[in-house]
Amino acid sequence: MTLPDRILLAHGAGGRKTRELIEELLLPSLSNEFLATLSDAAVMPRFPEGRPALTTDGFVVDPPLFPGGDLGYLSVCGTVNDLSVAGAEPLWLTWSLILEEGLETSLLRTCLEGAVRAAREAGVRIVAGDTKVVPKGKGDRLFITTAGLGVVPPGRDLGDHRVLPGDVILATGPLGDHGATIMASRHGMSGAALRSDCAPLNGLIAALLASGAEVHSLHDPTRGGALVTCHEVCARTGLRMVLDEAQLPVRAEVAALCELLGLAPVAMPCEGRALIWLKESDAPRAIEALRSHPLGRWACAIGRAEAPRKDRSPVAMRTPTGEERPLDLRAGADLPRIC
Amino acid sequence: MTLPDRILLAHGAGGRKTRELIEELLLPSLSNEFLATLSDAAVMPRFPEGRPALTTDGFVVDPPLFPGGDLGYLSVCGTVNDLSVAGAEPLWLTWSLILEEGLETSLLRTCLEGAVRAAREAGVRIVAGDTKVVPKGKGDRLFITTAGLGVVPPGRDLGDHRVLPGDVILATGPLGDHGATIMASRHGMSGAALRSDCAPLNGLIAALLASGAEVHSLHDPTRGGALVTCHEVCARTGLRMVLDEAQLPVRAEVAALCELLGLAPVAMPCEGRALIWLKESDAPRAIEALRSHPLGRWACAIGRAEAPRKDRSPVAMRTPTGEERPLDLRAGADLPRIC
Repeated sequence: MTLPDRILLAHGAGGRKTRELIEELLLPSLSNEFLATLSDAAVMPRFPEGRPALTTDGFVVDPPLFPGGDLGYLSVCGTVNDLSVAGAEPLWLTWSLILEEGLETSLLRTCLEGAVRAAREAGVRIVAGDTKVVPKGKGDRLFITTAGLGVVPPGRDLGDHRVLPGDVILATGPLGDHGATIMASRHGMSGAALRSDCAPLNGLIAALLASGAEVHSLHDPTRGGALVTCHEVCARTGLRMVLDEAQLPVRAEVAALCELLGLAPVAMPCEGRALIWLKESDAPRAIEALRSHPLGRWACAIGRAEAPRKDRSPVAMRTPTGEERPLDLRAGADLPRIC
Repeated sequence: MTLPDRILLAHGAGGRKTRELIEELLLPSLSNEFLATLSDAAVMPRFPEGRPALTTDGFVVDPPLFPGGDLGYLSVCGTVNDLSVAGAEPLWLTWSLILEEGLETSLLRTCLEGAVRAAREAGVRIVAGDTKVVPKGKGDRLFITTAGLGVVPPGRDLGDHRVLPGDVILATGPLGDHGATIMASRHGMSGAALRSDCAPLNGLIAALLASGAEVHSLHDPTRGGALVTCHEVCARTGLRMVLDEAQLPVRAEVAALCELLGLAPVAMPCEGRALIWLKESDAPRAIEALRSHPLGRWACAIGRAEAPRKDRSPVAMRTPTGEERPLDLRAGADLPRIC
């Protein structure tokens, strides 16, 4: 191995050093028959029957290593999940790096191994990549940007246009684990029993859809958590979303950290949870299907879509006493900054 | 308009400020029926007949504005070109931003308009995007990462596996204009008659392929210029590439700048040129087809693929006196750092 301990500017210049980085580090892990590195495109044999779905996401999380994952693992999970909640089966991913000069090669290796592990778990392939290096002080160790291509099978149509008043909202598991873990890592609060929920959700969502429940729409509550997701669904549907405080699944350690930092669990990002809008009468069998999958063991109903009311906030929390507390869309400065 | 003059961290947090940035700046320019912003994936109606091609590229060029283009225009051209040289017709792009806190909103707007202009010129659509904001000092104004999906029409097969000894190598225009322009901008040498060649090449390549010439392989000589491209083709084919110094198209102002900075024009990146490997007897009609297109007016032959020779460098320059000078693959530190 001729790779130094730290990444050099020359590793991004396109010459021999770039080739060494690709051949000694990236290719041995990523290798598959379609992989295109350097300048070209990957060409796959055929696109399956169905509609193509395309998504992109940038990952700039600090710290890049955290309990339960790393930036590479997260980057693949995030993209797989964006496709999955759109009803698509993820197929092929691209993985693009912006490295800061001086980055520890070992950190890059860990994130690469994380990405490969997530791709294997999700059954997708990373077919194209790119590596750029920026001068020290012009980046933040490593940024990863992914894109994902998937296929929506014929006859499947999920989305907010299908959400109806009366739909039940399910969560596939406890909310805010990822956000709380990152915040704790950043504040040096190690030792807490916090662990990111980050995971690829395509298998869980396939199990849900196979149950035959009439699912209308799915979302992954990442930036801004369930709070921002519900506001987005309100904006697209014109309905209101009412969450049930007594039902909201939040781990004790996440609730405690939120209390300490003055943050709301409902605004904390998840990276391995989905929110599901579906026909009320199908909720029991959907929950049963979710709970039969390792990533959905704690699936439960958390609220309901309701007809809009001029005198009420579009997103609200119903307290155990039956009162409603508005959940406003925050400006952003008061949302937990995870990325 | 409520957008401030400079980008705030809150613009990346996923809350109200993020929505303002998207709704007031990004959506009005990018708007099309498939566009997916925030968390979801874009779903398109169908994938055309042919093989899917996928590529990704990160754009970290300093400075982000330069004569002949901007980082946004460049980002779309680069991705369109990566698909085009793989024989694919570009269809849909993703466009992902990593913004540094404090970035001038006007610069973002200029780059956005550049991306939209390039997409219009190339006839592609930007269907998915993402925006992250990193703290001041953790980025470099703006980084753009794109991915592109295209289709290789049935029956088309281009690539280095088809390159044969005796193939002529064409360049679609003068080499190194982009690299020289960036280097001059960075060194404050304004006033020079330098202008980036950056342009979407799908139309030019379609004209070439329509000529019926037996084209074997195409590449866009970006990082490391024709030098690195030729080395990559050598590595994949086992052949050697011999360029003809007397034929190499280099503008006088590019040659002068290279002389001044001690750089070789053949190692200078292009962002709107292709190198073409094709059957020797078809070169005249290929050149004619290229020259009939505005982006190929100065197309010409620049060299030839030859059988390997143990006693010679894999890439060489043949001088007007018939001698050969080896063109070694540089480590990277001595390549012009454009990105």
